Amino acid sequence: LTPSVAARADLIIFAFCSLLLLAVAVCQGYQSNDIDEEDELVYEPSKYGSLWPLPQKVRVSEVSFKLPSASFKIVDAKESSAGPSCSLLQNAYRRYYEYMFGSVRKPGYVKSRAAGPSEISELQVWITSADSECDSYPSLTSDESCEFALPHCLETFSQLVYEDAYGAKNINSTTISDFPRFAHRGILLDTSRHFLPIKVILANLEAMAMNKFNVFHWHIVDDPSFPYLSRTFPQLSQQGAYHPYTHVYTPADVKMIIEFARLRGIRVIPEFDTPGHTQSWGKGQKDLLTPCYSGTTPSGTFGPVNPILNTTYSFMRQLFSEISSVFPDAYVHLGGDEVDFSCWRSNPDIQNFMEQQGFGQDYSKLESFYIQKLLDIVTTTQKGYMIWQEVFDNGVKLKPDTLIHVWKGNQQQYKDEMANITSAGYHTLLSTPWYLNRISYGQDWQGVYRADPQDFKGTEAQKKLVIGGEACLWGEYVDATNLTPRLWPRASAVAERLWSAKEVTDISDAYSRLSMHRCRLVERGIPAEPLFTSFCPHEYKGV
Amino acid sequence: LTPSVAARADLIIFAFCSLLLLAVAVCQGYQSNDIDEEDELVYEPSKYGSLWPLPQKVRVSEVSFKLPSASFKIVDAKESSAGPSCSLLQNAYRRYYEYMFGSVRKPGYVKSRAAGPSEISELQVWITSADSECDSYPSLTSDESCEFALPHCLETFSQLVYEDAYGAKNINSTTISDFPRFAHRGILLDTSRHFLPIKVILANLEAMAMNKFNVFHWHIVDDPSFPYLSRTFPQLSQQGAYHPYTHVYTPADVKMIIEFARLRGIRVIPEFDTPGHTQSWGKGQKDLLTPCYSGTTPSGTFGPVNPILNTTYSFMRQLFSEISSVFPDAYVHLGGDEVDFSCWRSNPDIQNFMEQQGFGQDYSKLESFYIQKLLDIVTTTQKGYMIWQEVFDNGVKLKPDTLIHVWKGNQQQYKDEMANITSAGYHTLLSTPWYLNRISYGQDWQGVYRADPQDFKGTEAQKKLVIGGEACLWGEYVDATNLTPRLWPRASAVAERLWSAKEVTDISDAYSRLSMHRCRLVERGIPAEPLFTSFCPHEYKGV
Repeated sequence: LTPSVAARADLIIFAFCSLLLLAVAVCQGYQSNDIDEEDELVYEPSKYGSLWPLPQKVRVSEVSFKLPSASFKIVDAKESSAGPSCSLLQNAYRRYYEYMFGSVRKPGYVKSRAAGPSEISELQVWITSADSECDSYPSLTSDESCEFALPHCLETFSQLVYEDAYGAKNINSTTISDFPRFAHRGILLDTSRHFLPIKVILANLEAMAMNKFNVFHWHIVDDPSFPYLSRTFPQLSQQGAYHPYTHVYTPADVKMIIEFARLRGIRVIPEFDTPGHTQSWGKGQKDLLTPCYSGTTPSGTFGPVNPILNTTYSFMRQLFSEISSVFPDAYVHLGGDEVDFSCWRSNPDIQNFMEQQGFGQDYSKLESFYIQKLLDIVTTTQKGYMIWQEVFDNGVKLKPDTLIHVWKGNQQQYKDEMANITSAGYHTLLSTPWYLNRISYGQDWQGVYRADPQDFKGTEAQKKLVIGGEACLWGEYVDATNLTPRLWPRASAVAERLWSAKEVTDISDAYSRLSMHRCRLVERGIPAEPLFTSFCPHEYKGV
Repeated sequence: LTPSVAARADLIIFAFCSLLLLAVAVCQGYQSNDIDEEDELVYEPSKYGSLWPLPQKVRVSEVSFKLPSASFKIVDAKESSAGPSCSLLQNAYRRYYEYMFGSVRKPGYVKSRAAGPSEISELQVWITSADSECDSYPSLTSDESCEFALPHCLETFSQLVYEDAYGAKNINSTTISDFPRFAHRGILLDTSRHFLPIKVILANLEAMAMNKFNVFHWHIVDDPSFPYLSRTFPQLSQQGAYHPYTHVYTPADVKMIIEFARLRGIRVIPEFDTPGHTQSWGKGQKDLLTPCYSGTTPSGTFGPVNPILNTTYSFMRQLFSEISSVFPDAYVHLGGDEVDFSCWRSNPDIQNFMEQQGFGQDYSKLESFYIQKLLDIVTTTQKGYMIWQEVFDNGVKLKPDTLIHVWKGNQQQYKDEMANITSAGYHTLLSTPWYLNRISYGQDWQGVYRADPQDFKGTEAQKKLVIGGEACLWGEYVDATNLTPRLWPRASAVAERLWSAKEVTDISDAYSRLSMHRCRLVERGIPAEPLFTSFCPHEYKGV
């Protein structure tokens, strides 16, 4: 990780996993202090400008350089293992050039010119990983050690750029060494309770990239609607979506969303939650759900997936086979939360099956019976799985690479749950304190910011099994009209907790940086709501 | 109010104050039931479709008529006292034609054609008031008895129009007699804590019109910033605004906002709150604020307006003289809330003045001294005044036409306050339960909907002194990014409480109508947030 380039020219160095950004300053007329003598402002509150989330190590000096917008270049370093054929890099260059300098070509734009004094004329990107193909997908283990780190690096670089009194773009000489504290930094969006137009999803993927989130947990279907258009079972959305044409995600939509995310270093993990939360599935798939009984006759309503029919499992086999090929990520989220047993209890066929299996009256055994078979099916598709904590709580046999998602309980309860899961040797991630659909009056981002996923009683080995967390925005009260401002910048508080060092907890420093960060989101077109009484130089124009 | 037109042709009649809307149906091929025999659905829950707020009297029949979008006309009735020269009417016709049929001219649009069977070809507007000039402003006493009622009537008409299975526009034969329960139905927006771009204000004026609100209470300046550009004292915004150019309302902006509101039957009442809430005023006006002392020396900070200097009152005289000519409404809101006495207490000059006046240590007497002089000044500008409840509580002498604005306390306290104010013979309006800046998780519109401004112990005469209420959206946590979805449709709950009959309290019927109403707001471009899990045929496209 030691850059082996001529020292004097490299004033800004990012060493981030195996990737380097070198901003090359041409110092012809450079009259200022020598770089070795500059004041280093390390971990002083509010001296980090608008950096969010705060990098692991950062030294900002007072020496500033101008960025010539008319000729500034972001280029592949000669030594880089990835080049012009890498669409991920090229897209990121364009995106961040626009964030920093605006999309309008400046009058007098020139491809190259002699650099002036105290100017930084180009940013060199040096990818050192072996995989230079750039056509793979980010993953739990690799996303921060290859080209998928590049968008995060450029984000940091762009956060260092500021306007001086004349509107000119400047950057201070800065050394940053950075990596994320947790590998799994997610946002859950729910497209079942309200349909979210593709534009909304894309806007939030952009905001995620600006906050270095790397997992989009797509809670795509649930009780209220089934907007996923399945090639194998088109009746599911035909009957189960709010509208079969205007309120569905076609295969092309899904593909586009995945690619949009990939270009920003974001994984897409779909959740197909069963056996509960499946009311909308029943509309397009006969016999999938359990018929509920009122006394000795079917009541006409339906409960969870029917776990006693072979047809259920052949349906799941086909559906998850499709899902495994549509979604490239190595993981799929299988849900498993909140199964209501009352309908199963009412059904005589289920009762017989329970007796036959020797389950007694313990319906969680029936639930586990179902989940076990489902996990076996998904295992054959070569996917790993994430599941909500109930599946672990019920004692279902899980593969060692299973990710257990904690969402329930008060503070003590979720800490105990994290301790239990990790002491059993499983990986886990936290969402309980980050249910951002829950709102209250005032600055609730502070409570969000204070929660820490490793803050439970356990050994160091246990703590290492925590892979991160997710901010969840369940859909009861949000749709295209209000989702984005409700999520941002509240989710940014989660972003810093999951990226920055554990010790970064100074709330007043965070307030200062987050206020500036939210104005940057606004300037980039994201309607991120204000933290408190304030103003932005460029207010939101999208109304 | 009895329409004297050929009975058979008038299938839809609005009798609303002194204004009539007659939708003339041409019944050549009319084969359906006779109008006298049709089913009348009066006050049956959820039978009122999407009407919001619910009109005072409404009879909807099952007889439907088609509206030919290609030739439908909204015209002045022959007998109408207002005609083509009335810009208010012409603007309203265009607006509601677009809401009903879209702004795109249909292929084959024809100015006139023979009407088909069961068709309504035109809507006749019959203004019966004497004032046909249409260049005046709505007021507390006149707004619902003249042409300013017209936008409300057209809103109701447009809410009756629905699409059939083929996308054709239909309306059922309906008789409505309508008037508002309260004359003052307001929304407070705060442009000091966050600056609100003009587009945001205009969008909310549009939403107000769709909900029959008729007062925009513009809390234009406060401690954090002074965005009002005063011709007399330009330094106030030059120094006190967040930014002297990008974060101010110029005289032209103010004029435009007032006219935009007027065309929608909405009054604009500005609030210039003193003597507290004036930190931003002090930046551009020397000696206006009280210097606070730390021991025997000035601390460098400032408190409320300095009430002991003559210069203060000459400043106020000039400022309110300007305000009275810039804002045409008969009322101005003078604030008077939350005066912090600690700075006054610290200042030796104030202490001397207190002694001299014999006020002892009772600083509320000093506050009243100031307010009394301010009220006298404003009285000379021929304006009536609104004030926050503290001014009444402190025993300041008030003109009989003063409107006392209740905002404090818990439910029992604000009810007692309303009782006290009205038993003293003053007019009052309520905001306490309608502080919509306060948010909580879930359907908080229901609590908002249940509050009633006349629900306190008092005589009928006292109840009549309640002129209405205002939904307040204070600006700490809202700006252009999130204001509109946070306000709507929660403010719609207040709208129905202030417009509809006292007995309209069925919450499930309200839920049904309000859900449809919010989708209509969305379709018209207002990002009104969802009430709960649901969908709209046309989701919000403005993202």
